[in-house]
Amino acid sequence: MITIDQARRIIAAGEARAQEIGVPVNITVLDAGAHLKAFSRMDGAVLGSIDLAMGKARTAVLFQTTSEAVWDYCKPGAPAHALELSNGGLAPFPGGISLFAPDGTVIGAVGVSGGAVPQDLEIAQAAAAAAA
Amino acid sequence: MITIDQARRIIAAGEARAQEIGVPVNITVLDAGAHLKAFSRMDGAVLGSIDLAMGKARTAVLFQTTSEAVWDYCKPGAPAHALELSNGGLAPFPGGISLFAPDGTVIGAVGVSGGAVPQDLEIAQAAAAAAA
Amino acid sequence: MITIDQARRIIAAGEARAQEIGVPVNITVLDAGAHLKAFSRMDGAVLGSIDLAMGKARTAVLFQTTSEAVWDYCKPGAPAHALELSNGGLAPFPGGISLFAPDGTVIGAVGVSGGAVPQDLEIAQAAAAAAA
Amino acid sequence: MITIDQARRIIAAGEARAQEIGVPVNITVLDAGAHLKAFSRMDGAVLGSIDLAMGKARTAVLFQTTSEAVWDYCKPGAPAHALELSNGGLAPFPGGISLFAPDGTVIGAVGVSGGAVPQDLEIAQAAAAAAA
Repeated sequence: MITIDQARRIIAAGEARAQEIGVPVNITVLDAGAHLKAFSRMDGAVLGSIDLAMGKARTAVLFQTTSEAVWDYCKPGAPAHALELSNGGLAPFPGGISLFAPDGTVIGAVGVSGGAVPQDLEIAQAAAAAAA
Repeated sequence: MITIDQARRIIAAGEARAQEIGVPVNITVLDAGAHLKAFSRMDGAVLGSIDLAMGKARTAVLFQTTSEAVWDYCKPGAPAHALELSNGGLAPFPGGISLFAPDGTVIGAVGVSGGAVPQDLEIAQAAAAAAA
Repeated sequence: MITIDQARRIIAAGEARAQEIGVPVNITVLDAGAHLKAFSRMDGAVLGSIDLAMGKARTAVLFQTTSEAVWDYCKPGAPAHALELSNGGLAPFPGGISLFAPDGTVIGAVGVSGGAVPQDLEIAQAAAAAAA
Repeated sequence: MITIDQARRIIAAGEARAQEIGVPVNITVLDAGAHLKAFSRMDGAVLGSIDLAMGKARTAVLFQTTSEAVWDYCKPGAPAHALELSNGGLAPFPGGISLFAPDGTVIGAVGVSGGAVPQDLEIAQAAAAAAA
């Protein structure tokens, strides 16, 4: 079970990286049941990226993987056409990462949005690394 | 415009009071346009109160008052029956408080849920007091 | 069929009365099919009243009456309990008024919100009077 | 903060261009928080384009850009697949333009729909030019 202390460390690590890069982002932390644990919108992050940070984290935790891994199942030519329309709409692109306990149990996910996609991914990876 | 530093002070003040009382709560901070700025769910807070913390803060900021003040308009015998069905559903009971700049401009709102209603109100008041 | 020129006269008449009273309001004009024709939010009107102006006008036109007349059907003791939950949520209190052509055909409705309920009603009546 | 006077100038400029072109359109003006400020549907504009005018303006302001610029992030081959499903559904095609204060702060957006896409864009540009 993810704790609020973990969630704060995750957000702090993500924001530290975002400040190094110089891009304001939203960071969402969800628990294993896809319920919101913590959220932070850095000053200057665009409003449209709030929902994207939520969506990436939700996409990741619902399938216990990363948000972009879900795209492999629904992209053109893949077998699960329109999978992205399920669950109220997924966000199957980089920036959502599931978090796991040492025993491999999923404990939640982090989602980042506000920068270019590679920036969001880099920030999400820095955030996720702080979950341990 | 509310800043993330303000939002963190608001949440910290609310959580300090919640810990004194001994009740885990969710705390939402919204900006003046009712968009999420920061959120924190203390360990042990029930899932159903996530949406209530959001709803109380939204109810407060949409009407630039407290969440319970909205009830005066929609309670039995008051003139705006079913007002609580508007805006996607309001939460017109204590725990949501609008935040104002020194010049009287609304800058956002805080919403608290997780305890008994008087506890939520006390925590929201402690949180709001830290906005200045 | 309501025209944009009529809708502008309706809004202008409502706003003139609102300025006399000294209360900023939202004014919605819908057509006979409950689709938006025109809308105006005066500077200073609270955000939560946007949806209420919409809801009052919609409540009125859907039943070809006034918004408060719908309350007679759903108030405690009346036969249509919870009618206000229908149609995505009604706003059965004063401030919505259906508009009729000289031959009695409904052509739309106006909805006003932002002040106290009696103020909204007075402004809506002034607005509706300009529809002719 | 966008004023109702600005919003009316924006709509008037858009409608003047629409009349020159000879195409009836809907014009939406939103504030910086994506809340409705003013709306006008010219006589003859199709009903389905009401929501499109809203959606284009919302898409623009949520990302502080134009509605079509958002498509660069979600079109086939771009990194944010299905981004258009976020925020309750985006409208990432021409006709939505963010509006900025002289200091670069976003103050809202205008959205136009009802004609062919190039017509909507031309009308939206004429409307946006009147915001200054």
